[in-house]
Amino acid sequence: MTQNTVEKTPVTLLGLGAMGTALARAWLAAGHPLTVWNRTPARAAALATEGARVADTPAAAVAANGLVVVCLLDDASVAEVLSGTDLADRDLVDLTTGTPAEARARARWVRERGARYLDGGIMAVPPMIGVPQAGGYVFYSGSHELFERHRETLAVPAGTTYVGEDAGFAALHDVALLSAMYGMFAGAAHAFALIRKEDIDPAALAPLLADWLVAMAPAVHQTADRLRSGDYTKNVVSHLAMQVAGTPTFLRTAEQQGVSPELLSPYFELMRRRLAEGGGAEDLTGVIDLLVH
Amino acid sequence: MTQNTVEKTPVTLLGLGAMGTALARAWLAAGHPLTVWNRTPARAAALATEGARVADTPAAAVAANGLVVVCLLDDASVAEVLSGTDLADRDLVDLTTGTPAEARARARWVRERGARYLDGGIMAVPPMIGVPQAGGYVFYSGSHELFERHRETLAVPAGTTYVGEDAGFAALHDVALLSAMYGMFAGAAHAFALIRKEDIDPAALAPLLADWLVAMAPAVHQTADRLRSGDYTKNVVSHLAMQVAGTPTFLRTAEQQGVSPELLSPYFELMRRRLAEGGGAEDLTGVIDLLVH
Repeated sequence: MTQNTVEKTPVTLLGLGAMGTALARAWLAAGHPLTVWNRTPARAAALATEGARVADTPAAAVAANGLVVVCLLDDASVAEVLSGTDLADRDLVDLTTGTPAEARARARWVRERGARYLDGGIMAVPPMIGVPQAGGYVFYSGSHELFERHRETLAVPAGTTYVGEDAGFAALHDVALLSAMYGMFAGAAHAFALIRKEDIDPAALAPLLADWLVAMAPAVHQTADRLRSGDYTKNVVSHLAMQVAGTPTFLRTAEQQGVSPELLSPYFELMRRRLAEGGGAEDLTGVIDLLVH
Repeated sequence: MTQNTVEKTPVTLLGLGAMGTALARAWLAAGHPLTVWNRTPARAAALATEGARVADTPAAAVAANGLVVVCLLDDASVAEVLSGTDLADRDLVDLTTGTPAEARARARWVRERGARYLDGGIMAVPPMIGVPQAGGYVFYSGSHELFERHRETLAVPAGTTYVGEDAGFAALHDVALLSAMYGMFAGAAHAFALIRKEDIDPAALAPLLADWLVAMAPAVHQTADRLRSGDYTKNVVSHLAMQVAGTPTFLRTAEQQGVSPELLSPYFELMRRRLAEGGGAEDLTGVIDLLVH
């Protein structure tokens, strides 16, 4: 181990679940002095043997360092854990998963107590933390001043992507991307279900499926361009009318293969509604309008 | 233009919709003698000026060449158009979109008439035909003898991927991949809907969304491995129980952003069902079991 000549920013971390523990190990490995607190002391004790200082209370942990990171079960836990602490002049980074509205309310609550607030949405699972080549990253939003001051420290566990002063934007980006991922997983589940009773190796379908999804993912750029321009009909290759005409083949195939259409039907239903409302010459972008009230 | 010393296989093509026309142009451009027939003669006449021979009837078109490609509206149209033709000893390639069951039945019907049958599922839109760098391809299944004999000719409009002697497998692969794509598009639609009322540029979200979907698509390989082994719990990083616990954040975010959860809820509902049935230690693979009756 080489001795660092530049002092690393000390970090306080509240919450040592699987994600919190991974964050703690990444900062310890990078030479940051680390103070931890966890409701269940055993998890903190394990990290003590790796160099972390263990605080007995959240108040003591918050008092220890200017940079305080919380990674708890949910926003209600954040309120509860921080309620007995003195947040004056702290830089609080909240990596707890929550909604944009929760992040905005928490930002106000924290600022009223004299602290700066940065919200984070983690786009990674614990094994990707501290492993730059794994490609995980964290969306940050809220105090840009805080983000810039601690940029290097925040970049230790995973990449950083700042998405705006609005404290809710990190959670919004996090939820948006993960929602899209669940949609893709739902589509893939339907695909694997279709071949279930056939003499087709799922491992032979998988590379075709992965390559196809990777090839089709950039379609979101065209969707974005159409949403910006408001023009859903210019240079459309596969018109909504044609795509709706194709949906019975998908539904009949599901039926013939003994597969429930429940993951496919809701999107087709919105396509049909948009067509009925006159969107036949559009691409699929109009479906988005139907989702927003 | 260099003169080809090797004779190119003559092709008969029935059906000149957008896709049929694109196929015709690709074969003409590659120097294949081409005989076409279309219900609406105007489309055939346009191709005549580009070198195609126009047949007055399906029977004459089928009689003209040993290799007969059909690309019609649906399977019922194939039956109708081919009913008055002599298929004896023809190599019939059916690129008409349909279900696996339709392809299997059509294969029997064609073989009873003395022809070989190859079914195709086109993974491309017309502008990608004849443009190898566009990455489009066609799934083929059915007579392997036919496929091997005409491999080079079939490779002219788009790449070829042979997926088995079962005539239904091309359609099954086609429908499986396109179903998965619609799932991904549904997820992306939800993501764009979430930011609709915010000061976030869709064109700023798009690259984050595309990169994330591309990064998550390879998860289908793990799904395939689990389906093969039947073990859904080994080395699971994000347990179903934990993921189900996270779903309220997604649903509350949708509600707060004024977005209908209809594209997200069905998958979450299946996750909850699998959890209730004891799958908490699994990953998401068990959802597939719930889809198949």
